[in-house]
Amino acid sequence: MEDFAYIIDTFFTLFAMVLIILMVPGFAMLEAGLVRTKNVSTVLTVNIMIYVVASMAFLLLGYDIAFGSWENDSMSKWAAFLFQMAFVGKAINIMSGGVSERVKVIPLSIFTVLMGAFIYPLIVNITWGANLLKDTFLELSMYDLAGSTVIHSTGGWALLAAIMIMGPRYKRYVKGKIRVIPASNIPLVVLGAMLLWIGWFGFNGGSVGSISTKENADLVAKTIMNTNTAGLAGAIIASLMMLWKYKKLDITMILNGALGGLVAITAGPDLYDMYTPILIGAIGGALVVFAVPFFDKLRLDDPVGALSVHLVNGIWGTLAVGIFASNGDDITFWGQLKGVLVVGVIAFVLSYIAIYAINKVVAFRATDDDQQQGLDFEECGLESYPEFVRN
Amino acid sequence: MEDFAYIIDTFFTLFAMVLIILMVPGFAMLEAGLVRTKNVSTVLTVNIMIYVVASMAFLLLGYDIAFGSWENDSMSKWAAFLFQMAFVGKAINIMSGGVSERVKVIPLSIFTVLMGAFIYPLIVNITWGANLLKDTFLELSMYDLAGSTVIHSTGGWALLAAIMIMGPRYKRYVKGKIRVIPASNIPLVVLGAMLLWIGWFGFNGGSVGSISTKENADLVAKTIMNTNTAGLAGAIIASLMMLWKYKKLDITMILNGALGGLVAITAGPDLYDMYTPILIGAIGGALVVFAVPFFDKLRLDDPVGALSVHLVNGIWGTLAVGIFASNGDDITFWGQLKGVLVVGVIAFVLSYIAIYAINKVVAFRATDDDQQQGLDFEECGLESYPEFVRN
Amino acid sequence: MEDFAYIIDTFFTLFAMVLIILMVPGFAMLEAGLVRTKNVSTVLTVNIMIYVVASMAFLLLGYDIAFGSWENDSMSKWAAFLFQMAFVGKAINIMSGGVSERVKVIPLSIFTVLMGAFIYPLIVNITWGANLLKDTFLELSMYDLAGSTVIHSTGGWALLAAIMIMGPRYKRYVKGKIRVIPASNIPLVVLGAMLLWIGWFGFNGGSVGSISTKENADLVAKTIMNTNTAGLAGAIIASLMMLWKYKKLDITMILNGALGGLVAITAGPDLYDMYTPILIGAIGGALVVFAVPFFDKLRLDDPVGALSVHLVNGIWGTLAVGIFASNGDDITFWGQLKGVLVVGVIAFVLSYIAIYAINKVVAFRATDDDQQQGLDFEECGLESYPEFVRN
Repeated sequence: MEDFAYIIDTFFTLFAMVLIILMVPGFAMLEAGLVRTKNVSTVLTVNIMIYVVASMAFLLLGYDIAFGSWENDSMSKWAAFLFQMAFVGKAINIMSGGVSERVKVIPLSIFTVLMGAFIYPLIVNITWGANLLKDTFLELSMYDLAGSTVIHSTGGWALLAAIMIMGPRYKRYVKGKIRVIPASNIPLVVLGAMLLWIGWFGFNGGSVGSISTKENADLVAKTIMNTNTAGLAGAIIASLMMLWKYKKLDITMILNGALGGLVAITAGPDLYDMYTPILIGAIGGALVVFAVPFFDKLRLDDPVGALSVHLVNGIWGTLAVGIFASNGDDITFWGQLKGVLVVGVIAFVLSYIAIYAINKVVAFRATDDDQQQGLDFEECGLESYPEFVRN
Repeated sequence: MEDFAYIIDTFFTLFAMVLIILMVPGFAMLEAGLVRTKNVSTVLTVNIMIYVVASMAFLLLGYDIAFGSWENDSMSKWAAFLFQMAFVGKAINIMSGGVSERVKVIPLSIFTVLMGAFIYPLIVNITWGANLLKDTFLELSMYDLAGSTVIHSTGGWALLAAIMIMGPRYKRYVKGKIRVIPASNIPLVVLGAMLLWIGWFGFNGGSVGSISTKENADLVAKTIMNTNTAGLAGAIIASLMMLWKYKKLDITMILNGALGGLVAITAGPDLYDMYTPILIGAIGGALVVFAVPFFDKLRLDDPVGALSVHLVNGIWGTLAVGIFASNGDDITFWGQLKGVLVVGVIAFVLSYIAIYAINKVVAFRATDDDQQQGLDFEECGLESYPEFVRN
Repeated sequence: MEDFAYIIDTFFTLFAMVLIILMVPGFAMLEAGLVRTKNVSTVLTVNIMIYVVASMAFLLLGYDIAFGSWENDSMSKWAAFLFQMAFVGKAINIMSGGVSERVKVIPLSIFTVLMGAFIYPLIVNITWGANLLKDTFLELSMYDLAGSTVIHSTGGWALLAAIMIMGPRYKRYVKGKIRVIPASNIPLVVLGAMLLWIGWFGFNGGSVGSISTKENADLVAKTIMNTNTAGLAGAIIASLMMLWKYKKLDITMILNGALGGLVAITAGPDLYDMYTPILIGAIGGALVVFAVPFFDKLRLDDPVGALSVHLVNGIWGTLAVGIFASNGDDITFWGQLKGVLVVGVIAFVLSYIAIYAINKVVAFRATDDDQQQGLDFEECGLESYPEFVRN
């Protein structure tokens, strides 16, 4: 019977891990579709680089820092590692996406090493892992099943630091005006977003940690259902708002609305009844629609809307647990808020220091000339679509 | 032991559901590749809209109408719901694909609500579900494992109603001639078709309903094998016919042949030996090759061949069960035919009424001007490939 | 308890099989992205043709030749078949990819029948299967878990034979110079490579053959982890070499480095500790970077780098087992080398004879005129991207 749980949970965790790895092409296609053709290969290279560098750094150092030990009695320790490894790159993906079209690959690779080996593992340590802060006044009681805060806000804070240091894209804000830069390949955006959506089932479902009892099987299925429901609601509300505001259905905003809903539910998809995720996801989708122009007003240039999707909704989702699932005991609104703040400060400060320091040695930002020419030429030495005549 | 079945079947159903959700990007990529670039974003928006609206409608209303209850003893009720939810949008996808390049998103969204909340659930009710027709002379005995009739013909009948009401695309049939409109992006067509193919393993395999006994494990594996075999045969026969008729291997027709075979096997992949699916799939593929020009002759304009793939083969596949797997008792040819007819009448009539009524309030059909300009401009306010110079 | 193993292993094998089938769109997208737009549809047609023809040939003839019997006590015989069937096309994909942009579909289809029905099954027979060579001096003791030799080298040898018979693409080598022909669609390359990577988890993980004991669950998870690690290392080393040699990060070479690492680990991912795959994968990635210009110097024209990825690393990976996992008993360096040589001779000679003979009847190579015009026109009768203006 014990063996049964070990076997099933190993299998289930591998299944969940495979779904999460689908998010690697997911993020890559989403971002390749959202940027201009002259920067597509650089964005793709960054996505692949993040997966390989962050995973290797986590294997060699990060996992030990996060969990203190590889031992695991409830499933194969290799499966447990793979599942956690599949998470690492995501936080960095969130950051890299938001500085697309100007970030250079080499400094970002150095940051990826630091993030994969130290910063992200430290945050896992104090939330899901070995718990360095145990018995200090900073010890966290935040409930964050699959990482509204640990993954999404962390990536969002790192992105905010990066945008503050690197500034906007060349000629993005000219004479007080915001220049609209359209996405270059809409089918890739849709493909990428749907791969992310499907990956989320593994992300959140797998975070339940076990499917080997009747109760856990129910919990896993409910988690996946509620995850999906929040995505549906986020997309629907974003659609309605786009229709109401512009009379147009901008599919990139609808998908960002869905992703916002998915981020928002991630802290507690196992805790809610089947209707609450509609509300949480709808608010998540609406927040994206409001936040995208808001960050532009602040001149925080984020070509893919990552601050709106991941930072704003990572915070909202974590607080939502405190609002809708508080039990007055181990889950409270203040416990959630404390988690948001402590992780936020650590993620932002460490990312800021790391990016600032690296930036002194190797500039993160491509020159205006390189941006004008497109990063692919200088960074990758190739064109993404060399045969197509471009405007 | 009972817990074992509950856990494994929950896990297996979630696995199958994930495969089916891959059909969302599958249909989206297939259709985005088949239409002209000026309509690509609209088609993509429609596909995402269908997933989110139909799923939400099914969650809030449809599932109750179809099954009468959420209770389930053999697996997690949430998993059982998710699996059924994954089906809903498919029938509507079939319909929307066939009216691509002229259908507007808002009236289609209203139809999606009606279809996801009422029409499709009603058809599930009388076939797989609570069985409203029980003990009446209309009670069905049709065997339809995974929906040759329930999904594919239903979608096909709805499409026929839509085409009859909306008419062909602007300038598709001019002065008695059929204008050939080539697919705009063949890699997307192939990607989409292969995601559909893979999704079918979950569709049909998951419809066995359980993998938790030796017999059921065999049945699931055989179902997936036979599903695949019919797809192989459909593609091979379509290739040979294309070579014989045109000396060219039109990959879009080959893939439609494969999909035709997959639709045809869907009613009974668990019932056949390993060779019969070759015959059923080959006939399915051949039917597609004959049906595509046939519908064009009838001036039923269907840019993706959905009538040929889904309606014709949904009927053929359901009747094939009566021919190759009749046991003279609960499975008979006449029982299958009755199912085809009853479901066909209900699906066609209700869809016709719904589309006709909506059409009186909000026109389904984009104006000729909007079609000429491309639907993306008016519906989505963006271009799908804004940087590429087009012919 | 016995039923438990049967059920779980059937389910697990179906899961692995689905991942491998993702390699069909994986190879298709990778190759469609690497070739010129005028040959994209032909390459896609070839990939779909290989899946349908090879699988059907294996079902009707090959599986019997390879294994002698369909019986299986440890899991559903249909699942066991499906898993093996998912492998067949891969060896032929490797071969077809390397003769892209000049190979014609019909002769390749004939070769696919021979390969799927006879040549590949024969190689499986003497390695994983019924073992025709048993008790002869040629009997093999090679350890090759998931096919570094059986799949990858076999495909590579067939490719070498094909290139020798067909020659290079028109105007690829002109007046002693190598003309660089850039990839036409980089996002498709990345998507395809990542689908292959994910498919590899099923390929290698599923090849363990069982997950139904604690030991096997560990072994499966470790196999997937080591597989992934080798891919990471291959990509990292290829990146560093590209930076060092050209100061540019050519994403197509980085991905080929990853694939080289994945091929190299495939012979023994279950045998190593968690660090050895870093070395094996890094050497694999480095071999690709060296081998690509080397084969060009030999005037062996291989548009996708398949010789470097699959042949070179198939050999390296098989020998690596003899170096790093030799136990002096059933696994030895000489046993591995003997396997490489015997399979190599059989695969090369039989492929050479088959291609040579077919080539006498139907020329494999498209005429120079057809190559100049693009194969899509003659072979498929359509354009892959008809609306985009091309250079």
